[in-house]
Amino acid sequence: MQPLTAQDPAFAARVRDSFDRQPAMAHIGARMSRLEPGLVEIELGYRPELTQQHGFFHGGITTMIADSAAGYAAYSTFPAGSSVLTVEFKMSLVAPAKGNHLLSRATVIKPGRTLTLCDVEVYACQGADRTLCLKGLETLICLHGKEDR
Amino acid sequence: MQPLTAQDPAFAARVRDSFDRQPAMAHIGARMSRLEPGLVEIELGYRPELTQQHGFFHGGITTMIADSAAGYAAYSTFPAGSSVLTVEFKMSLVAPAKGNHLLSRATVIKPGRTLTLCDVEVYACQGADRTLCLKGLETLICLHGKEDR
Amino acid sequence: MQPLTAQDPAFAARVRDSFDRQPAMAHIGARMSRLEPGLVEIELGYRPELTQQHGFFHGGITTMIADSAAGYAAYSTFPAGSSVLTVEFKMSLVAPAKGNHLLSRATVIKPGRTLTLCDVEVYACQGADRTLCLKGLETLICLHGKEDR
Amino acid sequence: MQPLTAQDPAFAARVRDSFDRQPAMAHIGARMSRLEPGLVEIELGYRPELTQQHGFFHGGITTMIADSAAGYAAYSTFPAGSSVLTVEFKMSLVAPAKGNHLLSRATVIKPGRTLTLCDVEVYACQGADRTLCLKGLETLICLHGKEDR
Repeated sequence: MQPLTAQDPAFAARVRDSFDRQPAMAHIGARMSRLEPGLVEIELGYRPELTQQHGFFHGGITTMIADSAAGYAAYSTFPAGSSVLTVEFKMSLVAPAKGNHLLSRATVIKPGRTLTLCDVEVYACQGADRTLCLKGLETLICLHGKEDR
Repeated sequence: MQPLTAQDPAFAARVRDSFDRQPAMAHIGARMSRLEPGLVEIELGYRPELTQQHGFFHGGITTMIADSAAGYAAYSTFPAGSSVLTVEFKMSLVAPAKGNHLLSRATVIKPGRTLTLCDVEVYACQGADRTLCLKGLETLICLHGKEDR
Repeated sequence: MQPLTAQDPAFAARVRDSFDRQPAMAHIGARMSRLEPGLVEIELGYRPELTQQHGFFHGGITTMIADSAAGYAAYSTFPAGSSVLTVEFKMSLVAPAKGNHLLSRATVIKPGRTLTLCDVEVYACQGADRTLCLKGLETLICLHGKEDR
Repeated sequence: MQPLTAQDPAFAARVRDSFDRQPAMAHIGARMSRLEPGLVEIELGYRPELTQQHGFFHGGITTMIADSAAGYAAYSTFPAGSSVLTVEFKMSLVAPAKGNHLLSRATVIKPGRTLTLCDVEVYACQGADRTLCLKGLETLICLHGKEDR
């Protein structure tokens, strides 16, 4: 796919500012480690309180960072003065999320004036090993003329 | 739909025990408020740390309790000595999750020896008002002969 | 769920006219057997050319009538002078589509100015027996001010 | 992604034989134009009877060849003496399927003993132009010891 160009030169500040205002992301300890037009990575370190009954990351936690990466990948391509909402997502949990941290990567597949589709993957990382644990598709809507505040 | 019958007379103890061993559910403050064969409800009270940038419940948090309700609704129909894994889900976020608590309800649509399909809804509750905020479908797999421990 | 009211008193003529202009529906022999605001049923009789390698209805054929029912259920709630497009769907094929005809029923779960979410089911019918063979969710978009012609 | 290796040296004959026994694929005129372990392409030429009310390929037809490509991509990686069933799929229709033929490509993302996940895309082709019109994910199940006959 050809690289996307941001419509808004200040997209990076706008995206990071919104991310920083999400208490839920701070609460679980997620951080945005990469941000380009149409591409966002979010990472999350292991904490016992983020796990399910077998000690792996809970599927809902894995989904949280997948959804967040997709939302901000889309938002990075939106014009200034807009906001973003998740319409729907489909996530396949293809392997246990077992590792010392998770890496989520979302890319915009199809940008649009109203709707944007993102592909999203989450990898469970242990040392140098990366295992795909989630693969998904997510649809986002752009609310024009509605600041994200 | 006709009511389901549990294969395992001890299904309730088995489901509640598994739920109680999920640190992520305790961490966000979720509790299982209803449990019948093929039907589970999970509730979650408002906390600032569970929100997104507009002060509503984060979509990932809403999904966590939807996924958990679906997983345990399926697990309640499984035989003793088995465990449950989420294969995939599709969630549509149809309204902001704005309220003082969330109620998630999952029901088994199609039980199966290997795969089980659940319907899941989450309502945002404020006083006597209930607004549907999430509608989804989730596929679960039964791991026979593998205790959930 | 409360019954929906059509915004457009001429919704039935508008929906049936659009359905009748779909060559693909005529080609497979599908007919619209029920139409109310927010609710559409489409039926399809068995023909050998609609089957997969085991002689059951092909999953793609089953999906065609599910998608069509959902699209027209949504369209029935849209204002005059608009058209409808499918944004996405998720279909779970829960049993073989084995029978002498299929009945697809779609209902609007969440109407909206831009996006509408439908629930959809397909039953495989043999005499008096009905077996659920498909369960899905579908998102539609309303194109305001764009006639369906 | 690393290329997959077929478990069954006779995978190509097995896949093509099954495809050739699907009356629905012959009925619409679809043909399998590429087959490798874990990768299948299916093409479909324009015919008026495959269209919706605006003269583009019907979304259900587009989905038929997407589903078929995914099913055979998965089946190509299965052992001899097994068969394949579609569990579920999620398809996003990102642009009108407008062109003189469609090209569907499915690749196995995650092979498994029981469940296999495929990524699938459909392109609308007009001369040298290719436009992505469908992006999806599909889950398939392997029925071991059950010949596809």
